[in-house]
Amino acid sequence: MVKLMFEGSDLELSPSKIVCLLRTYAAHAGELSNDLPDRPRFFLKPPSALLKNGGIVRIPEGVATLHHEVELAVVIGKGGRYIREEDSHHHIKAYTVMLDLTSRDIQNEAREKGLPWAEAKGYDTFAPIGPEAVPSGAMDPGGRRIWLKVNGEIRQEGNTDQLLFPVDMMISEISRVMTLEPDDIIMTGTPAGVGPLVDGDVVEAGIDGIAPLKITVRSK
Amino acid sequence: MVKLMFEGSDLELSPSKIVCLLRTYAAHAGELSNDLPDRPRFFLKPPSALLKNGGIVRIPEGVATLHHEVELAVVIGKGGRYIREEDSHHHIKAYTVMLDLTSRDIQNEAREKGLPWAEAKGYDTFAPIGPEAVPSGAMDPGGRRIWLKVNGEIRQEGNTDQLLFPVDMMISEISRVMTLEPDDIIMTGTPAGVGPLVDGDVVEAGIDGIAPLKITVRSK
Repeated sequence: MVKLMFEGSDLELSPSKIVCLLRTYAAHAGELSNDLPDRPRFFLKPPSALLKNGGIVRIPEGVATLHHEVELAVVIGKGGRYIREEDSHHHIKAYTVMLDLTSRDIQNEAREKGLPWAEAKGYDTFAPIGPEAVPSGAMDPGGRRIWLKVNGEIRQEGNTDQLLFPVDMMISEISRVMTLEPDDIIMTGTPAGVGPLVDGDVVEAGIDGIAPLKITVRSK
Repeated sequence: MVKLMFEGSDLELSPSKIVCLLRTYAAHAGELSNDLPDRPRFFLKPPSALLKNGGIVRIPEGVATLHHEVELAVVIGKGGRYIREEDSHHHIKAYTVMLDLTSRDIQNEAREKGLPWAEAKGYDTFAPIGPEAVPSGAMDPGGRRIWLKVNGEIRQEGNTDQLLFPVDMMISEISRVMTLEPDDIIMTGTPAGVGPLVDGDVVEAGIDGIAPLKITVRSK
């Protein structure tokens, strides 16, 4: 369970799943030499990976390269399956800022060997979230600057208009596979500029219109 | 949420995650021409995939080859992280029977392209469970025959003694990555004999000492 600021009070979230889109910004797919996906593709992060704003990310033993990825995240309000793209907006409760922290070395090994991504993406503290959830009626997710700074220096920068798939299509496509439940979280992918984090790094990340997220990285 | 029979009453489970081990029986890894893992490797299935005993598995549109995989599943009682192998048994509440239903065509594409497994493994109804949860104090998970029949004909057969990693080591290794919560489910992998299911198939699956699971497959 995590708490976010929402319309002046606390929003307590207990997601049953966190669904993460991949390669949704062409410039990011390019920097990792990945093909663009033919349709929205996704993986799961466990809810145990959530970390609240202001928290400490722990670099796990055995992880050589921890990468930052800033993402626009969608909180589901009304659940459903086979949600039509044109109805998707009725299922969104709020938007927030998240980091999809990734062990790039373990992920690269998994990709080479055709293994799943759960370990590379699923460590505790690998899903920082918040501090704010903006009600879906109060913002249009399109055309928003998305950025990430490490120790005050800009590292990632993009605009949600660069998303290869609209958010409504992502929701429709995920719900073709799995029932979305209230509180479920969809992470929409990261723009270019991903890179390593080391002990002591302070990471700030934001999306225009949502209060920025801040975490600190520790190796112990 | 699913209900299982447990010590004469109902056990209501709301897992925050389902962690699935892969290639834990050498004969199964061999039949799919996979290398044996160097350590316990795992992926996640979403809780929305759970299906109770007696239910109907739906072959999703776009899935060409739905494969059956019978597995011994562990229900976590007491959560924890960095659980030592020798303490793992204190964290197990019960054992049950599950199927890890898999879209083999989508999984093969994912493995070839280095993509995640969430879609191939995560459709609704792809995680049949039950009907019984046997308290961990009432059974030793080792040395148990594990089997699966399709329309009364035996297809999978093995023994939990063939597991490459002990259950206690699986729990320890998963908890090195992610905090285990009460109700979380660990699926321990499947023996040899996996194969396709088609419309109308009746699947029965069991592990000695646990009441067998039965589901029906429908394409619509």
